[in-house]
Amino acid sequence: MKAEIVAIGTELLLGHVVNTNASYLSRKLAGIGIDVYHHTTVGDNPERITAAVRDALGRADIVITTGGLGPTVDDITVATIARLTGRPIVLNKTVLKDLKDYFKLRKVRFPADNVQQAYIPEGVKWIRNRVGTAPGLIMEWHEKLIICLPGPPREIEPMFEKDIIPYLLKSYPWPLAPGPSIIKCRTIKITGLPESLVNNKVKDLLKLKPPTTVGIYAKLRHVELRIMSKARSEKAAAAEIKKIEDKIRARLKDYIFGVDDETLEYAAGKALTRARKTVAIAESCTGGLIASRLTDVSGASKYFKGGVITYSNECKEGIVGVPMGLIKKHGAVSKQVALAMAKGVKNYICTDIGIGVTGIAGPTGGTKSKPVGLVYIALVTDRKQILRELRFKGSRQDIKYQASQVALDLIRRNI
Amino acid sequence: MKAEIVAIGTELLLGHVVNTNASYLSRKLAGIGIDVYHHTTVGDNPERITAAVRDALGRADIVITTGGLGPTVDDITVATIARLTGRPIVLNKTVLKDLKDYFKLRKVRFPADNVQQAYIPEGVKWIRNRVGTAPGLIMEWHEKLIICLPGPPREIEPMFEKDIIPYLLKSYPWPLAPGPSIIKCRTIKITGLPESLVNNKVKDLLKLKPPTTVGIYAKLRHVELRIMSKARSEKAAAAEIKKIEDKIRARLKDYIFGVDDETLEYAAGKALTRARKTVAIAESCTGGLIASRLTDVSGASKYFKGGVITYSNECKEGIVGVPMGLIKKHGAVSKQVALAMAKGVKNYICTDIGIGVTGIAGPTGGTKSKPVGLVYIALVTDRKQILRELRFKGSRQDIKYQASQVALDLIRRNI
Repeated sequence: MKAEIVAIGTELLLGHVVNTNASYLSRKLAGIGIDVYHHTTVGDNPERITAAVRDALGRADIVITTGGLGPTVDDITVATIARLTGRPIVLNKTVLKDLKDYFKLRKVRFPADNVQQAYIPEGVKWIRNRVGTAPGLIMEWHEKLIICLPGPPREIEPMFEKDIIPYLLKSYPWPLAPGPSIIKCRTIKITGLPESLVNNKVKDLLKLKPPTTVGIYAKLRHVELRIMSKARSEKAAAAEIKKIEDKIRARLKDYIFGVDDETLEYAAGKALTRARKTVAIAESCTGGLIASRLTDVSGASKYFKGGVITYSNECKEGIVGVPMGLIKKHGAVSKQVALAMAKGVKNYICTDIGIGVTGIAGPTGGTKSKPVGLVYIALVTDRKQILRELRFKGSRQDIKYQASQVALDLIRRNI
Repeated sequence: MKAEIVAIGTELLLGHVVNTNASYLSRKLAGIGIDVYHHTTVGDNPERITAAVRDALGRADIVITTGGLGPTVDDITVATIARLTGRPIVLNKTVLKDLKDYFKLRKVRFPADNVQQAYIPEGVKWIRNRVGTAPGLIMEWHEKLIICLPGPPREIEPMFEKDIIPYLLKSYPWPLAPGPSIIKCRTIKITGLPESLVNNKVKDLLKLKPPTTVGIYAKLRHVELRIMSKARSEKAAAAEIKKIEDKIRARLKDYIFGVDDETLEYAAGKALTRARKTVAIAESCTGGLIASRLTDVSGASKYFKGGVITYSNECKEGIVGVPMGLIKKHGAVSKQVALAMAKGVKNYICTDIGIGVTGIAGPTGGTKSKPVGLVYIALVTDRKQILRELRFKGSRQDIKYQASQVALDLIRRNI
């Protein structure tokens, strides 16, 4: 069973709106075992809509359009699909009453333009829009299915979940055809190794062929391996995924910090909670980002006591007690100052662990010996001290983010 | 002049990644007068990539692919396009040297797999990737242009702006064809008014018809009005936009904090710079987010001296001198504590302005009288003190973000 998504709207082609509907619908379709092989976007133009829907019908069993169902002259999806499928457009009185009720409920006079939304192709199934005015449409055509949805994500999502998915599951009881019908995914998240080294360690797995495959995705100091499995049942897919995950875990060990939606700040928080340790952070170039990420996790107050952002040298001296002599001798961006910041904030806030970060986030302020992207990160406990010298690339925000990744990973791995 | 964008990557079809590249590239292409009539997304499959690129070449003058240029076995864009255009793939020694330098600079041993990225079709123009390893490619084919870009937005953006746009402007001097050929946009950014009130104030402008239109977009404590104009020349479009912008400014006055890429943290920084004032911040529920956003702006060290994150009550007392009695009497989340934090951090770091923020970011910790989302924000100078009580909705991160919006706006408007 294959589906395609055709997004309709000139605003998408102008780049004013990001097509999040395509990824939302793809995720939902994968969840019920329907493959999506193409996304297409076209503007509010009848010829191009017709061509895109016709091409999609040539390749897929289900074609879902999004957008172009509104009450304005730009909204031509219904008229175009009606022409393509040779169905007359008629006024549907139930839809009209439904639309009038919608406005009555909101105490707004029924706008004349909205009558257009009650004209739909004859004999199609229509779906009430719980959030807006445009009804969704489901029509059969030569043993294929054309589904027309409105454009706004907040209108699509309830319609798709409450009406379209149940309709699909009822019309095409699974498994549809011989072969697998459930797609399950699991993402293994890694930090501390570059993409190329992760790739080396799982090269054989990346070559796996369906029904179970592994993909690799690189982000900022963060690599993801995504395992995907198609199977006849949830349980069979989960078993396949576990087999691969075990192999990945055996090879990448504690470079793995989490799965699926787990963030690195969550992993750091979990490690702190498990060890019943508290942390304090002194940040210079990251400007509060590490503390902000740590406190994105609910319950962070159990282990995160406080932080200081010592942006000026006076703050480094005044708040965390870094001697001005040390700053003068080695520079504010130096191993010595990072360590002194970590020790200072640990003592000052009375925690088990202190973190100190100093560096040059750029784009200005770099020198030959201390270029933009140079960052020192120190972690100090009563028993040990760890220091990292890093050279990051990218924008100011990228450098801040990469430094925060290293700091959170240091916390995760060293308590 | 028409362009199409073909995104390559199974992760897009599974809905794991949203295709923001298509909107980014479309915006940039519109800005230099190139129309985009189609976006297509296909997976890492040679037949489907070939078909999509061939279809796109049949309709457009320029085809831009994104993704599939990495060093892994999944990355088949170069091989597929080479086959399609009949060019042999050869090892490009300059690219190889460039790649080796990339790793040398980062003190990482050159990974054998990355050699793959130096094999490119013979005779194509390649473009250095400033952020990652995959070079971009530009190749001419039957008077059309095929441009291959990497997948990650942070790699595409500098490449497109610094290399591809100048290349296109040099190769095809504008205006290309009769008729309107330039699309210009301007975004007016507003905070402090809800979407419905902004909507009321510009209702007539939102009904404008092409060639000049206005759209409204709501974000978290931030509303955008986007003016778009199509015209024969840059100058004519700019004049049309200015006419509308003047009307919007007359109606929304200083609720407007910036245009286009300007952020609220940038606007706050500009106000501080202009007034030659310095600021210090004491954050509780925002956990460092306000400081992190302020320091995202290059040059922030001129006005941002430092901050403290007083997550625990001990920190509130110990660092910024909020008396424990005050916390016991009114609670850590109270007007009194927000004010005491602002005063305390101002005195402690010796700045012109002090900001104090305390609240309940949730999802737990709320009570009937102090629910999740309740946040107090104080701004203190030598001459005045301002206090805001706010009740935000949303996730923990949403609440943090909305509080940071209000704090940054207080700085912008009160110095």
